[in-house]
Amino acid sequence: MSLIVQKFGGTSVKDAERIFHVAGIIADTYRAGNDVIVVLSAQGDTTDDLVAKAQEIDPHASRREMDMLLSTGEQISVALCAMALRKMGLPVISLNAWQVGIQTTSVHSNARIKRIDSERVRAELDQHRIVLVTGFQGVNKNGDITTLGRGGSDTSAVALAAAFHADLCQIFTDVDGVYTCDPRLVPNARKLEEITYNEMLELASQGAQVLHNRSVELAKKFHVNLEVLSSYERKPGTKVKEVTKKVEKTNITGVAKDTSIARIALVGLQHNPGVAFQVFNLLSKANISVDVILQSIGREDTKDISFTVAKKDLEDAQKILLENKEAIHFDHLTVDDKIGKVSIVGAGVMAETGVAAKMFEALYEAGVNIQMINTSEIRVSVLIDEADVNKAVRAIHAKFFDEE
Amino acid sequence: MSLIVQKFGGTSVKDAERIFHVAGIIADTYRAGNDVIVVLSAQGDTTDDLVAKAQEIDPHASRREMDMLLSTGEQISVALCAMALRKMGLPVISLNAWQVGIQTTSVHSNARIKRIDSERVRAELDQHRIVLVTGFQGVNKNGDITTLGRGGSDTSAVALAAAFHADLCQIFTDVDGVYTCDPRLVPNARKLEEITYNEMLELASQGAQVLHNRSVELAKKFHVNLEVLSSYERKPGTKVKEVTKKVEKTNITGVAKDTSIARIALVGLQHNPGVAFQVFNLLSKANISVDVILQSIGREDTKDISFTVAKKDLEDAQKILLENKEAIHFDHLTVDDKIGKVSIVGAGVMAETGVAAKMFEALYEAGVNIQMINTSEIRVSVLIDEADVNKAVRAIHAKFFDEE
Repeated sequence: MSLIVQKFGGTSVKDAERIFHVAGIIADTYRAGNDVIVVLSAQGDTTDDLVAKAQEIDPHASRREMDMLLSTGEQISVALCAMALRKMGLPVISLNAWQVGIQTTSVHSNARIKRIDSERVRAELDQHRIVLVTGFQGVNKNGDITTLGRGGSDTSAVALAAAFHADLCQIFTDVDGVYTCDPRLVPNARKLEEITYNEMLELASQGAQVLHNRSVELAKKFHVNLEVLSSYERKPGTKVKEVTKKVEKTNITGVAKDTSIARIALVGLQHNPGVAFQVFNLLSKANISVDVILQSIGREDTKDISFTVAKKDLEDAQKILLENKEAIHFDHLTVDDKIGKVSIVGAGVMAETGVAAKMFEALYEAGVNIQMINTSEIRVSVLIDEADVNKAVRAIHAKFFDEE
Repeated sequence: MSLIVQKFGGTSVKDAERIFHVAGIIADTYRAGNDVIVVLSAQGDTTDDLVAKAQEIDPHASRREMDMLLSTGEQISVALCAMALRKMGLPVISLNAWQVGIQTTSVHSNARIKRIDSERVRAELDQHRIVLVTGFQGVNKNGDITTLGRGGSDTSAVALAAAFHADLCQIFTDVDGVYTCDPRLVPNARKLEEITYNEMLELASQGAQVLHNRSVELAKKFHVNLEVLSSYERKPGTKVKEVTKKVEKTNITGVAKDTSIARIALVGLQHNPGVAFQVFNLLSKANISVDVILQSIGREDTKDISFTVAKKDLEDAQKILLENKEAIHFDHLTVDDKIGKVSIVGAGVMAETGVAAKMFEALYEAGVNIQMINTSEIRVSVLIDEADVNKAVRAIHAKFFDEE
């Protein structure tokens, strides 16, 4: 007998019909002789509706009260799904975060899970009950409700899988797995049978929306076997694990794009030591993440630093840098928000000779000009014109997957 | 400095505008130098909407899961109201039942409050925060969420007032107090300045909808000073307390009607001892409440028993009695669902000579035939034709209040 954690998102439980469908998947897993813990998100638009109610009262509502408000959404989902399973004749109980004992840090709206008490869930599993748990939320040391921020329910599922040493953690989504590329962009993109945690992390942070990085990081840390699969079709998804049995030796795992970024260049910086630290420390303090940094020699005794930030952070970043122009000592600042990033991801991409070159060749043949390059051990990213992004993705995907 | 508990119902917090209005009342109370605990119900139609969602999945959903579902409604209310008060610049915190520690019995959907932990609320009051508490709900010894059934939020408010020795418990409703009669029926009905717990109990159980009996019983038991007042108009309501300073010596407190009842008569019962116990025990086991019992001598060696039940219970009661016809030994059963009950309530109504007679006189003058009479120390009720009820109420009210 295995213990399986299953997570279903908001669209999967949006109405009674979908709830019964999800209950069918859960029932099959339970009837196959497994212990089952299920994590659910809030139904369809529930969270948006609650946010709208709060906005009407105060667009800058306290995060503590927002968490109090939003956490009701998942509680509604688990109660309704428990009713559906019970109607199907299955033993089931719904539990919210404080009943499970999901202990988090105190940061409202972006808390981290610290610990999960096991008594209640264990007792319910011992009674052979299916246990439904509210995703996205926890309780802090003051006994206040916290929420986990973006990708929170995935994180709840992985954390429960880790705490109860689950054999498998299945994340059900509206896609049926992880693809070599976005199938809407490249119709012959292939579904991957397996992918490593590190590859998944790189793909996720390079714009692939399937799993949130936090949940993958947690899965990697606690060796949780993940599977991404469809809640609509009953077929195997993509397994995310430590090591995969890769058959195609020299190939990459996938191609990802990200057009939600902008580039900032600081021109004419003095050659003072620590100037890079100074710049990125200022941005980090304002919670602005920086990606793809490039430093180049400028004219005479100066240098230039270029880097990308999320488009949503562009305005704040510019403001902070200009406010500190004197302290940082730069000549002027330029901005480009018409750029995009295209990445290839795969174990050993940089170790393998010729993989990066093959990517650049595809871009050259497609007439795409590369502005900046950034690499990790298992990833190569290029910064290009936003207008070239889709063309670049198709060219690269074709180069690696069509020529086999 | 006083501690005041204020309770607002669902229509009082149904949208942002009403929430800000309620927040204004709370803010005034707090700014006048009082500690304030506020109990809120679920917004407007929230509970109905949640019930509809559950019905769609299973019309016979488990009560445990119904409580899990419905308790989200009050949590939404307290979070939103906390946002409104905070926007007005007031220190405030919302707490749900498990955060407060409202310990109840285990009966889902109809739990009783056993104990209220005081630490968290006390700590928040010590920080000079307004404390908003979810009404209608608690937690049982298993850590499961329970709800308190009808009138639950009033009960929560009174229980909190008792636990924290509040100086006053204000129940805000859509009427501005307790009247001598339903003002929609008798336009010159008068608002009472004060009423005793016992009078309020009799009025409530005789059909006056202002306060639920459970909350009044609890207030009586713990000597909680209650006030019923309007959330729309800022004016004094009706105080409910142990002893009132009654000025009008021989008058009654109010006239109430109830047309949601039906009468059952068991005809031709054997004169066995314990037959009445047998009948009412059967009904009690099915959770059917019985009111106005009349036993009369029948023909020969038999007797008849008549009693009233709520109309909604009529079918079940008939079924149970007919199923046990042999055991109870009655000849036949008759039913009348076209009846109504009219009551007068007032301290010493039965002790005071002439009060009951005055009521019967009014009915006689109005040409209303009395079918059954039932009395308590502070109440006289008559059972009459349903068609005569409004006429009877007007006649009795005029007799006692217009002739002064």
